[in-house]
Amino acid sequence: MAPTLENQMTQENEPTSQVEVVPKYKVTVVGSGNWGSVASKLIASNTLKLSSFHDEVKMWVFEETLPTGEKLTEVINQTNENVKYLPGIKLGKNVVADPNIEHAVKDANMLVFVTPHQFMEGICRRLVGKVKPDVKAISLIKGMEVKMEGPCMISTLISDQLGINCCVLMGANIANEIAVEKFSEATVGYREDREVAQRWVRLFSTSYFHVSPVQDVEGVELCGTLKNVVALAAGFVDGLEMGNNTKAAIMRIGLREMKTFSKLMFSTVKDSTFFESCGVADLITTCLGGRNRKVAEAFARNGGKRSFDELEAEMLQGQKLQGVSTARELYEVLSKRGWHELFPLFTTVHDISVGRLPPSAIVEYSEHTPNFSLVEGSAQYY
Amino acid sequence: MAPTLENQMTQENEPTSQVEVVPKYKVTVVGSGNWGSVASKLIASNTLKLSSFHDEVKMWVFEETLPTGEKLTEVINQTNENVKYLPGIKLGKNVVADPNIEHAVKDANMLVFVTPHQFMEGICRRLVGKVKPDVKAISLIKGMEVKMEGPCMISTLISDQLGINCCVLMGANIANEIAVEKFSEATVGYREDREVAQRWVRLFSTSYFHVSPVQDVEGVELCGTLKNVVALAAGFVDGLEMGNNTKAAIMRIGLREMKTFSKLMFSTVKDSTFFESCGVADLITTCLGGRNRKVAEAFARNGGKRSFDELEAEMLQGQKLQGVSTARELYEVLSKRGWHELFPLFTTVHDISVGRLPPSAIVEYSEHTPNFSLVEGSAQYY
Repeated sequence: MAPTLENQMTQENEPTSQVEVVPKYKVTVVGSGNWGSVASKLIASNTLKLSSFHDEVKMWVFEETLPTGEKLTEVINQTNENVKYLPGIKLGKNVVADPNIEHAVKDANMLVFVTPHQFMEGICRRLVGKVKPDVKAISLIKGMEVKMEGPCMISTLISDQLGINCCVLMGANIANEIAVEKFSEATVGYREDREVAQRWVRLFSTSYFHVSPVQDVEGVELCGTLKNVVALAAGFVDGLEMGNNTKAAIMRIGLREMKTFSKLMFSTVKDSTFFESCGVADLITTCLGGRNRKVAEAFARNGGKRSFDELEAEMLQGQKLQGVSTARELYEVLSKRGWHELFPLFTTVHDISVGRLPPSAIVEYSEHTPNFSLVEGSAQYY
Repeated sequence: MAPTLENQMTQENEPTSQVEVVPKYKVTVVGSGNWGSVASKLIASNTLKLSSFHDEVKMWVFEETLPTGEKLTEVINQTNENVKYLPGIKLGKNVVADPNIEHAVKDANMLVFVTPHQFMEGICRRLVGKVKPDVKAISLIKGMEVKMEGPCMISTLISDQLGINCCVLMGANIANEIAVEKFSEATVGYREDREVAQRWVRLFSTSYFHVSPVQDVEGVELCGTLKNVVALAAGFVDGLEMGNNTKAAIMRIGLREMKTFSKLMFSTVKDSTFFESCGVADLITTCLGGRNRKVAEAFARNGGKRSFDELEAEMLQGQKLQGVSTARELYEVLSKRGWHELFPLFTTVHDISVGRLPPSAIVEYSEHTPNFSLVEGSAQYY
């Protein structure tokens, strides 16, 4: 059997004198927004240090012309800075911006997807047949859709469309805080191949960014989406000035519903995943800061009299809140399955967001104690 | 077999026409500080509504003479207010303050202990032989000691000294917020008797105070103590202005160490306990507000140059921080067992609090990844 790249690189951190030239993994980051730029910086600092990776990190940039008339890719390659989405931070000289996505991915052994989630379907279609057949992927994209038939995972979209292995990386990751090297953690969710997961862990880990692998890709990815619904609930509590005690209770109930929903959707989801950075830590960060929380607070302060659409337009310059649409999608799934009583918090957040209930309902809903006997055999999920 | 009080009252909420006069459980609250007064209020609102409890709730009050010259018990009984420890809140006319502890407990079927923890040894000694043999107890006291040979649980002290069943009630419970009926949750930890636990749940639950039973008395009680050490770590992060991302990571690592330590101490401790109000919710409340966090923040802002003793004296009017002494006690246990590497956060908090490490070490410690292979058979705890 001919030695594969995989076989030759099992001892990645221990260069041997017997093998003179080892093939190295080439990494491409698909996306260059705020988080994509920080991911490139993390990765680029490691590819220089670790012998099993090619130094150069390609970063696909959706080309834009800056107000100065210059192209964004050109400025990034001249200054090592993404002046538009991560100004003031050096990405590393080994980060090379490329405006051509097919060109950027064609030689990659490892693909990091970090684009707005609504672009992923188009990107996947465009990349079919353009990537190496044995390329490994990871998705950093939070905000998959929860469709009627179940959650539509971004990692599944990538795996299915491109026929490749896809992990996910989620966690309490505020890009600007990691950019200035403040201590943080993240979770890599993988399906089967622990060796590949470990490689992603090595590629992302730094002294200030700790990454742990978890064999639970669905659990990890669902955390990243469902937390936004809980953040709306936390924002309502803030707007009602109910205090930290009530807020902590609401966050806890939210975490429980995240866990229960994920386990009902995928029987492989593990409880322990919710103790990881992607679970409790990301929930805390999102419920303390974050725009879902912030707009929900404003919504409650206005007694629900100004709509989310109106507040979003005013506060977010046209960006849409992930939490509101996820709450609506979740509501549809709960309706279809007759699960509203199992998920009083998810249900109430949606009812409040569409004006069917006042914001104060967020601390009243829970008198309806979830009754798991309604779902046969689901007591284990509680 | 003669019918016992227990047997006669299994259908507590469904009065039957056959039994005309049912014996009712008599409740005494031992303690009347801020939390004890709120507990009395919660209980008193329920004993009036539930037929299985005697309306009157006795509250033992450590007698004090107020600046007006009046006795505290007399003022409480005249005004239904604990003017010293919970001013402005009506406790309920059925709360009767009693300065004589033996008298207050002698007829009780249910005893609620909610005093400062350092008084409990003396109180238990004083009550030996003075309580009904089948009385049930519950401890609301946070802050047991962690002794070299293991944690010294308050519930165990009560059980052993008085020879009675003792549950615990813990959770994200800021007394003043519950006093004004803001939504909150709590956890009842019990050892074996679920029927008794359910009775405590009924006695405490209101529309704004939700209580869940968990068969894990040690896990629930340990949460209430160990969280204070994590709150110090969170306070250091605040003082260093590291942001919510780092704070969430530190809180998560703290929760993991709480879980690991509890499981190593008591093999019966359940992971799921840490998802309850006593676990993640109390941790969040304590790390957002709370005096441990607050003084630790001041400590870090001063670069560790002013001692905890000094800051405590200045900020807390002579009160001592639970977290600092618990961190020291924990440190001794970890030293004795050779567990420092398993608990980098607990270890570092103590090292910082005694000035051996600078506050910034709180985000550096974790480069020492916990190595569970050091403790044989402990991989399961991680």
